[in-house]
Amino acid sequence: MEKYKIYAAGEFIDGPKQLDIRRPFDSGLFAVTTSADQDILHQAIMAARKAVDGIARIPSHQRSRILDEIADGILDKREKFTRIICEEAGKPYRFSMAEVDRAIQVFRIAAEETRRIPGEYLSLDWTVAGEGKEGWVWYFPVGVVGAISPFNFPLNLAVHKLAPAIASGNAVILKPASQTPVSVLELAKIIDATSLPKGAVSILPMDRSTGTGLVTDPGVDMITFTGSPEVGWKLKALAGRKKVTLELGGNAGVLVSRSADLNLAVNKCVAGGFAYSGQVCIHVQRIFVLKEHYPDFITRFVGRTLQLKRGNPLEPHTDISVMIDEENAARIETWVEEARQGGAEILAGGHREGSWFEPTVLTNTRNDMKVSCQEAFAPMVLIEPVETFADGVRQINDSVFGLQAGVFTNEIEEMNQAFREIRVGGVVINDVPTFRVDHMPYGGVKESGFGREGVRYAMLDMMEPKLLVKNQ
Amino acid sequence: MEKYKIYAAGEFIDGPKQLDIRRPFDSGLFAVTTSADQDILHQAIMAARKAVDGIARIPSHQRSRILDEIADGILDKREKFTRIICEEAGKPYRFSMAEVDRAIQVFRIAAEETRRIPGEYLSLDWTVAGEGKEGWVWYFPVGVVGAISPFNFPLNLAVHKLAPAIASGNAVILKPASQTPVSVLELAKIIDATSLPKGAVSILPMDRSTGTGLVTDPGVDMITFTGSPEVGWKLKALAGRKKVTLELGGNAGVLVSRSADLNLAVNKCVAGGFAYSGQVCIHVQRIFVLKEHYPDFITRFVGRTLQLKRGNPLEPHTDISVMIDEENAARIETWVEEARQGGAEILAGGHREGSWFEPTVLTNTRNDMKVSCQEAFAPMVLIEPVETFADGVRQINDSVFGLQAGVFTNEIEEMNQAFREIRVGGVVINDVPTFRVDHMPYGGVKESGFGREGVRYAMLDMMEPKLLVKNQ
Amino acid sequence: MEKYKIYAAGEFIDGPKQLDIRRPFDSGLFAVTTSADQDILHQAIMAARKAVDGIARIPSHQRSRILDEIADGILDKREKFTRIICEEAGKPYRFSMAEVDRAIQVFRIAAEETRRIPGEYLSLDWTVAGEGKEGWVWYFPVGVVGAISPFNFPLNLAVHKLAPAIASGNAVILKPASQTPVSVLELAKIIDATSLPKGAVSILPMDRSTGTGLVTDPGVDMITFTGSPEVGWKLKALAGRKKVTLELGGNAGVLVSRSADLNLAVNKCVAGGFAYSGQVCIHVQRIFVLKEHYPDFITRFVGRTLQLKRGNPLEPHTDISVMIDEENAARIETWVEEARQGGAEILAGGHREGSWFEPTVLTNTRNDMKVSCQEAFAPMVLIEPVETFADGVRQINDSVFGLQAGVFTNEIEEMNQAFREIRVGGVVINDVPTFRVDHMPYGGVKESGFGREGVRYAMLDMMEPKLLVKNQ
Amino acid sequence: MEKYKIYAAGEFIDGPKQLDIRRPFDSGLFAVTTSADQDILHQAIMAARKAVDGIARIPSHQRSRILDEIADGILDKREKFTRIICEEAGKPYRFSMAEVDRAIQVFRIAAEETRRIPGEYLSLDWTVAGEGKEGWVWYFPVGVVGAISPFNFPLNLAVHKLAPAIASGNAVILKPASQTPVSVLELAKIIDATSLPKGAVSILPMDRSTGTGLVTDPGVDMITFTGSPEVGWKLKALAGRKKVTLELGGNAGVLVSRSADLNLAVNKCVAGGFAYSGQVCIHVQRIFVLKEHYPDFITRFVGRTLQLKRGNPLEPHTDISVMIDEENAARIETWVEEARQGGAEILAGGHREGSWFEPTVLTNTRNDMKVSCQEAFAPMVLIEPVETFADGVRQINDSVFGLQAGVFTNEIEEMNQAFREIRVGGVVINDVPTFRVDHMPYGGVKESGFGREGVRYAMLDMMEPKLLVKNQ
Repeated sequence: MEKYKIYAAGEFIDGPKQLDIRRPFDSGLFAVTTSADQDILHQAIMAARKAVDGIARIPSHQRSRILDEIADGILDKREKFTRIICEEAGKPYRFSMAEVDRAIQVFRIAAEETRRIPGEYLSLDWTVAGEGKEGWVWYFPVGVVGAISPFNFPLNLAVHKLAPAIASGNAVILKPASQTPVSVLELAKIIDATSLPKGAVSILPMDRSTGTGLVTDPGVDMITFTGSPEVGWKLKALAGRKKVTLELGGNAGVLVSRSADLNLAVNKCVAGGFAYSGQVCIHVQRIFVLKEHYPDFITRFVGRTLQLKRGNPLEPHTDISVMIDEENAARIETWVEEARQGGAEILAGGHREGSWFEPTVLTNTRNDMKVSCQEAFAPMVLIEPVETFADGVRQINDSVFGLQAGVFTNEIEEMNQAFREIRVGGVVINDVPTFRVDHMPYGGVKESGFGREGVRYAMLDMMEPKLLVKNQ
Repeated sequence: MEKYKIYAAGEFIDGPKQLDIRRPFDSGLFAVTTSADQDILHQAIMAARKAVDGIARIPSHQRSRILDEIADGILDKREKFTRIICEEAGKPYRFSMAEVDRAIQVFRIAAEETRRIPGEYLSLDWTVAGEGKEGWVWYFPVGVVGAISPFNFPLNLAVHKLAPAIASGNAVILKPASQTPVSVLELAKIIDATSLPKGAVSILPMDRSTGTGLVTDPGVDMITFTGSPEVGWKLKALAGRKKVTLELGGNAGVLVSRSADLNLAVNKCVAGGFAYSGQVCIHVQRIFVLKEHYPDFITRFVGRTLQLKRGNPLEPHTDISVMIDEENAARIETWVEEARQGGAEILAGGHREGSWFEPTVLTNTRNDMKVSCQEAFAPMVLIEPVETFADGVRQINDSVFGLQAGVFTNEIEEMNQAFREIRVGGVVINDVPTFRVDHMPYGGVKESGFGREGVRYAMLDMMEPKLLVKNQ
Repeated sequence: MEKYKIYAAGEFIDGPKQLDIRRPFDSGLFAVTTSADQDILHQAIMAARKAVDGIARIPSHQRSRILDEIADGILDKREKFTRIICEEAGKPYRFSMAEVDRAIQVFRIAAEETRRIPGEYLSLDWTVAGEGKEGWVWYFPVGVVGAISPFNFPLNLAVHKLAPAIASGNAVILKPASQTPVSVLELAKIIDATSLPKGAVSILPMDRSTGTGLVTDPGVDMITFTGSPEVGWKLKALAGRKKVTLELGGNAGVLVSRSADLNLAVNKCVAGGFAYSGQVCIHVQRIFVLKEHYPDFITRFVGRTLQLKRGNPLEPHTDISVMIDEENAARIETWVEEARQGGAEILAGGHREGSWFEPTVLTNTRNDMKVSCQEAFAPMVLIEPVETFADGVRQINDSVFGLQAGVFTNEIEEMNQAFREIRVGGVVINDVPTFRVDHMPYGGVKESGFGREGVRYAMLDMMEPKLLVKNQ
Repeated sequence: MEKYKIYAAGEFIDGPKQLDIRRPFDSGLFAVTTSADQDILHQAIMAARKAVDGIARIPSHQRSRILDEIADGILDKREKFTRIICEEAGKPYRFSMAEVDRAIQVFRIAAEETRRIPGEYLSLDWTVAGEGKEGWVWYFPVGVVGAISPFNFPLNLAVHKLAPAIASGNAVILKPASQTPVSVLELAKIIDATSLPKGAVSILPMDRSTGTGLVTDPGVDMITFTGSPEVGWKLKALAGRKKVTLELGGNAGVLVSRSADLNLAVNKCVAGGFAYSGQVCIHVQRIFVLKEHYPDFITRFVGRTLQLKRGNPLEPHTDISVMIDEENAARIETWVEEARQGGAEILAGGHREGSWFEPTVLTNTRNDMKVSCQEAFAPMVLIEPVETFADGVRQINDSVFGLQAGVFTNEIEEMNQAFREIRVGGVVINDVPTFRVDHMPYGGVKESGFGREGVRYAMLDMMEPKLLVKNQ
């Protein structure tokens, strides 16, 4: 069992309170670390503030090399990081390794984007007042970024904050989820070995109230949060004058049209619905199928679902494992039961054992049932028929959330309509809303979020434009 | 004396409470209108919500023509708008006409930018996961914009919200300053004559508490505010999940270097210091002069100041007139007196009669005096010597504000240093911070604001990006 | 009958040789002007050279206003310009007026784009060698542009050279087609009334050998030519070190897929095939229809074709009139006859009277017949069935030309395939290749051209990038 | 002594004629290879044509990996490549290694840029005609690129063609200089080991007449040439309809202003004047010094010049070695002698032994002397006083060439004037024109070239835009 120090202001130290990290799969203790308190947090913020000018001055080739070194460091320990994620998050091996590879990719992209921080030219002589003047816009780092990341992608969703922060010349203090701090503390060792100034990065598990201090401290210039809508919007209210980015969740919808490739749609939806037990912000929760395909779709979908291989996350062929904790498994069990009592039909699954919840398929639900209108974050999908494509669009939009949506169609008009009318951050044609590559702009509208991530987009959010007016 | 109806949801109506508009210059009543209450506001919001889909679908050539028609409409009544601004704001004729011309220009720019709403292409095949996929990002209007504008540019600062809102396909509800609603109510007639859907624009004077309703109503998607820092930041806290843009004020600094063109610097600084009695967000408040130029600069500056022609704003040769009200004139009188008692020297001005306050020049001030550290928004500047260019940069930065700064220099190194190190939204080389053309990005950092205006920048703020992932 | 002077170096003068302008419709003389000789051309070039520095320094608001004044000037004489085009080019009234409106639009766009000449920022510190350096790229006018325009859009295709040349800060010397110089000489009067420096624009009808002088003169920096492939490629060879843009013709193809809206396809293809008697660079010459739609398409297409109203171009309801001259009408008559003898079937038309050639529809042609493989530039289309969509793509590509292509489909996959595989400058989905709006990039590949027009694209071609490396 | 096969259509073969590669330093034979004839060239072109569709379809992550593998391959043999360049080109070790590092960097940049091939969005509804339509511009590879590279950077100037060609999805056939083909034939082995389709790259030494075949063959779509102006412009005339990029030379000028940092200027100018014996396209040939600094500049410059260490290129501390051959050394000797007889004064150097030519400093030259007006491409600079900054600008512009220029100044106005008025591709402030980093746009105006290189710029040149008009 490994012991992890926390990483504060360039030093590996112990916080005042021990934090035991247990495997969700078998509740076994597999690592021990500590929590930061307000003092440690304060020191980290002070160190970050002191470091900002120096960080901003690092030439882009050096920032780029640092980011590449971090990517190399993760690659060197790819197997170790994979196993950590299996253990701390209960995520099946295959998906854990994919997450590690994506984290590497995010640092690689950041290494490239740091050399491409944009500048903009403006001719200012559009009126007599501007004659002889030209304008240039540059982007400067905000200073100190406070970052909060969730348990479900313990490495990569933290990296989506760390890498852009470094690439845009900021200092950053990360609060990882308390259940899953190990992979980022392992990462801290790699970051510490680079030539980044001490204080540029701190990685500090902390309890929620200490985390509030990170959000309210005047020494922090910006907050970037990934997690639940409930917590996210509360923190935004606390953040005062700071810039805030929120990456929250949703109840992502899929629409399968008349012209869809049904085979493709079924395969993608099973993956999008049950990967990592649906504990993914863009998990496929609601599938709407044009009525003529509905019976066929149901049959194939349920068939595929039953083939998913349950097991220990550390075993390479496991498709699906436990949820993060029993509390969440119990929650979804209740929701499904409520739905059943309200008239929903369970086509597959529905049972729970401890923190294991069967891959579950519902139909005949209503939009006001929790399984439909709230974020399930569980291995559960509902499949409903729709009369027309337009009905399907309306169904997807009938939600307080708006992160991503998937549409299976081969018609140009349907693609156009879907893109124009579905109110989300991203519409994915012929794939599930669960699709994400790490350089694309990613984020939600309505209650699903505020701002966009994706390396370049996150970097832009972490900078302020400054205009130079040059009177010749 | 003209009576103005208010413009709610496409109708010209009377609110429940009369609003008398008096000339600051002689307290004469020159127009009468009414205030909207919560009911009227609510109807306007409902109408705006109903209009949003229709507005978003208007083809760009039509949106462009509508914006051009508004510009034409103002141009046709250029003289009338000019006189209104003289009367309602007490702004000298020459400056009032310049404001009208700028408002025309803002609509012209918006007419062009509405056809240039950007789209962005992303190759997504950076990894195997993205193979065969491409991404397109488009920008969609947020929906309903709530806009609040101040008294000092009663037309143009409102237009900086209306024009981008229309150009980006949004509905907009404007609350003008209660002292100066006339020019925008005149504008409402022009807007109403276009083919914009009813409800797309409402212009509603209202008291502060009704205004709070605009900020908190869930039917409004975004708030854009120009006004005082105190009010602005409060509203941001009330705005909840909405996007917010704040254009606030500051205590803008100028730095006159060894290599400066002194003549240019003096002329520009007098203009930037006293235009419209300093009631300008980017009014020159603090001038730092390299010590070798200090005596000469003082002499010339005071000489020029004494030449400014005081008078009725409606007279074409008036350089400077009364402040917006006696309250503000009394406030600045107190600040100057406090400074004097604290050791400051008054080189010119310092006296008040009613709402008239003499153009005032101070030196020997300290950074903690109100005349230095708070926003004066009055015809008052302080001039202080500095030992080195770097000292001057530090002085300008020693402020909670950061809107714009001016630097007079002919040295490349000083230009670079100023741009890198001065923490503001815009650094103006060889002109005063008061410089603004209407298409440049404009806005502050620190307590001076949040976000940027300038037509294209305001438009981008009023839209949400949406990603289309197209799996070929 | 009006007499037109030619416009050389800012003066309206007479050339040594008279040029009679006759109406193609009735051979009537309707205007007289003169041809420039080498001397006049030389003076124009010298004047242009002298003007270049001054032109380049004009602030963008002034350049913009000049371009807007020209647009206004055309608008004021909209009716006159329309009639001139009817008379000199034999173009039906409705199409002539549309051309005038597009010329106005081109100047309006240029008035906007001249304020948006791009600048580009580069961080140069990607290696140690670039540390402390930044790069800015600006675009500077090439100097003197030589422009040659054709008869078929006597005003607008000349304007597509004049407007970008002025907008990008160049001097320009235009050689219009000898049959149709009147509309641009009328335009010269409007241009002359602006504040453009004398010599900035010259408009000189000249014979081909004098035109060669324009292409070879070392005082001219760039040649932009619109006309026949044969002449265009020859001129490019003569142009030596100059930049050259060629907008040539083609034998544009349309593909009507299984999922096409047949009604839309027929209507658009009849318009694209016979507008201005097919004397359009992107005239629809070859239509390929998926075999299941072929019989129906033929029937509808021929029906529509027979409804086209023949007449005097000056009459408002004329759909189709004479060709530019008898020579061309005789040429196409011969080609059609050759095709007939080679096995082609004439479904409609085929007859000639003088310079009138009936709207003609062929089928059962082969790709090596002149009617298929050469540029018809006449009111003639061929319609052939294809087995599969891929066959249709191959057919369109089986050509030495590649300007634009049209594809009628509602399938995403077909749209993707068409865009990827058809080798042309532009693929138009659900419209004909004849589609052009004046700000889009327009130009061909293969033998159809070199470079792109469309205001912004033409402007970029008329400028050179210059890099500023600034070592801080 | 190593034998090198040539690389044709994916095979390593022998051409019909042997090519002996000798060291310029001691005429020793150090490698043997062969020349391609027309047959081999033809097979390479055929193979390239066959490969183009496949190459264009490679996903960007794969193209990126291939380019990174090539960079890795060079890095693995960094020492070997360095020695080869020392031997084949007579370039001192330090500079040879720098060249190898830059070649690696070029492939790295290309690996990044290949994922960033731009797409462009256009709203087309600026007029009624475009309503409901949108436009997207993509860039597609031209097909087969013919590339010709010179002796002076035998690896990196070839890589500036190979890397962008691969990154933009083209096939490429490279003709290296006959004196220096070894480094690129070594590179061929690395390229061959990647998964690029056979035929994608051929590297073929050939004599000039075979090279003409590459330029004229209709199977080649574009020619990119780096070399002498004389040859370059001739090839352009032969290239017919092909796109052509020419990177030629010049007689680059430097201007040292009153406000210059003299020490910096001297150090940079000595490096820029004598690095690789001045055999660099942007070699500092003409230095103009404001008269008050002239005596001091001369003294320091000559002093530094005399310290340069002559020696064998393979020795690490050698600053300067022989020229590429005796012919060139004799040529520059003659030019200097002519200048001397015409009144020029030789401040240092001037003597020749075989292919060694002393670092030579002239003054009192006239602009019509060969040492001034022609491209020296030799270790020779001239230094002349100028009265004013404007005179210096005029002197630099008094040349048929226009590649880059250097200006040493600390004044904003002088920077502005230099950038606006010096007619070159790049103006370098506070460094020599010899400055180049591999991602910046690089290329000349006037007789110095046509088009721009620098990875992204070269890639854009190697692609054609294609517009998709999508009628919704």
